[in-house]
Amino acid sequence: MLKKLIVQKYGGTSVGNIEKIINVAKRIISYKNKGHDVVVVVSALGDTTDDLISLASKITRTPSERELDMLISTGEQVSVALLAMAVHKLGSEAISFTGAQVGIITDSSHTKARIIDVNARRIRQELGKGKIVIVAGFQGVNIDQEITTLGRGGSDMTAVALAKVLEAEVCEIYTDVDGVYTADPRIVKDAKKLDRISYEEMLELASLGAQVLQARSVEVASKFSVPLHVRSSFSKRRGTFITKEVSAMEEVLVSGVTLNKDEAKVTVCDVPDRPGAAARIFGTIAKGDINIDMIIQNISRTGYTDVSFTVMANDLTKTLRLMKDVVKNIGAKGVIFDKDIAKVSVVGIGMRSHSGIAAKMFKSLASKNINIEMISTSEIKISCIVRKGKGEKAMKVLHQTFGLGRK
Amino acid sequence: MLKKLIVQKYGGTSVGNIEKIINVAKRIISYKNKGHDVVVVVSALGDTTDDLISLASKITRTPSERELDMLISTGEQVSVALLAMAVHKLGSEAISFTGAQVGIITDSSHTKARIIDVNARRIRQELGKGKIVIVAGFQGVNIDQEITTLGRGGSDMTAVALAKVLEAEVCEIYTDVDGVYTADPRIVKDAKKLDRISYEEMLELASLGAQVLQARSVEVASKFSVPLHVRSSFSKRRGTFITKEVSAMEEVLVSGVTLNKDEAKVTVCDVPDRPGAAARIFGTIAKGDINIDMIIQNISRTGYTDVSFTVMANDLTKTLRLMKDVVKNIGAKGVIFDKDIAKVSVVGIGMRSHSGIAAKMFKSLASKNINIEMISTSEIKISCIVRKGKGEKAMKVLHQTFGLGRK
Repeated sequence: MLKKLIVQKYGGTSVGNIEKIINVAKRIISYKNKGHDVVVVVSALGDTTDDLISLASKITRTPSERELDMLISTGEQVSVALLAMAVHKLGSEAISFTGAQVGIITDSSHTKARIIDVNARRIRQELGKGKIVIVAGFQGVNIDQEITTLGRGGSDMTAVALAKVLEAEVCEIYTDVDGVYTADPRIVKDAKKLDRISYEEMLELASLGAQVLQARSVEVASKFSVPLHVRSSFSKRRGTFITKEVSAMEEVLVSGVTLNKDEAKVTVCDVPDRPGAAARIFGTIAKGDINIDMIIQNISRTGYTDVSFTVMANDLTKTLRLMKDVVKNIGAKGVIFDKDIAKVSVVGIGMRSHSGIAAKMFKSLASKNINIEMISTSEIKISCIVRKGKGEKAMKVLHQTFGLGRK
Repeated sequence: MLKKLIVQKYGGTSVGNIEKIINVAKRIISYKNKGHDVVVVVSALGDTTDDLISLASKITRTPSERELDMLISTGEQVSVALLAMAVHKLGSEAISFTGAQVGIITDSSHTKARIIDVNARRIRQELGKGKIVIVAGFQGVNIDQEITTLGRGGSDMTAVALAKVLEAEVCEIYTDVDGVYTADPRIVKDAKKLDRISYEEMLELASLGAQVLQARSVEVASKFSVPLHVRSSFSKRRGTFITKEVSAMEEVLVSGVTLNKDEAKVTVCDVPDRPGAAARIFGTIAKGDINIDMIIQNISRTGYTDVSFTVMANDLTKTLRLMKDVVKNIGAKGVIFDKDIAKVSVVGIGMRSHSGIAAKMFKSLASKNINIEMISTSEIKISCIVRKGKGEKAMKVLHQTFGLGRK
């Protein structure tokens, strides 16, 4: 008999203490008892990962990334063992696995590895024996059996990869909020839960700072059409489905507004306007495994130009170090940075067929006296960099302007 | 150039906090700088293992042993990563490994697995690159890549196994005491540090409750003639060497006195005196992977006899459960147990060639009004079971009787 397979991922807050672990075990078993095959992906308990990182920082401020992975991957191993014990205690069968044991093979980029292959033979075997399979999220091994981790939010990636390989009916992402909202409800009181959005929109929302889902995992889910369901581990209510675009969605002009205060702006000053200068800058950054978000280069009228870009704030030190040499090589004047920025964005598939969204956005910000410092756009989103102190105000006014509130 | 290879094992108290980890790193590097190849085996930090077990016990009192191994093996993984970071910080090269990564292959007896093979290829590779190799103690994998642990004191076993395979010059066991004593110095104030003892004596001392070294690892060290050096991680003083018997040792009649309060006595009552009854009892216990220490069966004059034996106190519940069926099968009357016992023993190679030690021991105990409840002997030790409350008194009087004190 073919059973409908579900992959469920529980984040750190869902397994924050023993009581919560037992609740998760109950939920898993209830799905198993409904006739599903269940594969569970778990993150580290509560703040374990941060605690381990802070332990390392007492020894060195620049730990080897290989050793850091060795250290922090223990967090998820603890979770899976405890969750398996809880399932046993409640009378069902379960077995836990590390990433290495179920063959989650990654490249060798420690602390931000990418999954290159999943050998799910062992999982299928255990499902075949009627067991609930519990897999440590966030981790894998490279081909030399070196332990790697997948970067912040990496457990989402584990869940999506397993859902794809196992051809799961749905990949449920359990978290401490009950879905994806039109804006962060902690800031915008009027924010509304979305019943359904497209991968593309979620991708923009995720990478723009809606902290519900890791962006990369949405990308992969989209690529392989893995249906995602973001929902709360503390209630049984339906959350937000993330699926392929459906025609009904297009009526909505803007789906959400996001705010990201974790970026920093870097400007390389007085870059000689010669072919190859930009390639030098961004080539170096790519080699350093740093993700760039926005890039702005003005037209040069003097033979020199400023090149500005934004990176995640925690990549700033590394970026500045890399830029030091580049500045010398290309004959630029220097590098300056600015951490006091926020990025506010509006996202919606509807933008594709409607113009005027950008104008409406800029006008709305101007009406509140919020200055725009950088702009970037994609087919379905517009982002503006503003002063950090104005970020929340910007988010609120845009949420209102585009009529996203509950009422 | 062939370098002299040293294996060093650091116990949990030696790496109890960040400061101690850095001190261990300094010590390791000092050996490396003297020209040695250094392989380090580390236990979990301080009380980590007990903390993890207590976490599990909040979920279930009878965790699956497989999942328990999954859980507690994380302790050593944390240690090796932190120690490698500390070595890096101090400017030397090091790399950490889990048991699985360096091919410590065990059988499948979870929580008390035995090493069946060590594939040290990876370690040799890294030593060849000039690195200090740091290996997680206490853990391995079976042939299906299931994580196993080696039982209490298992890091000693890891160290001895690696020392054997790598043909180390010496296996240094670092701990919080500065060697092996004639008796537990916390109880017998006058106890003396031994400069050198034989494997056989250490084996008796270790299995009798001198908690410095795991008995099984001494056995293996003896089998393969791996020289052991038990010493303090907090000083540079010479500790106790454990080697093959040398003639000078024979002059010493008794090397030490030990006390073990962690055993319980089990008595199967009114066992029909038929062939196969004892085999039934002890066969069942062996299958349950429980170690028996002393066994006493009186001569039967009624057709029925009592069979008594001692087991580790933490195996008592399991033992009693197993005995329930056996009692029915062999037609015995029932099972009783007694946890209020202590075992006091004297150990020494000299006993082989001298009679009268036992008589002297019994007389000495009688002089202090200490009743002997069970006796067992080997070539080089005599053990007596006494009431738990009399254990320390017995140890002290025997230490004195055999002239083991410093003066």
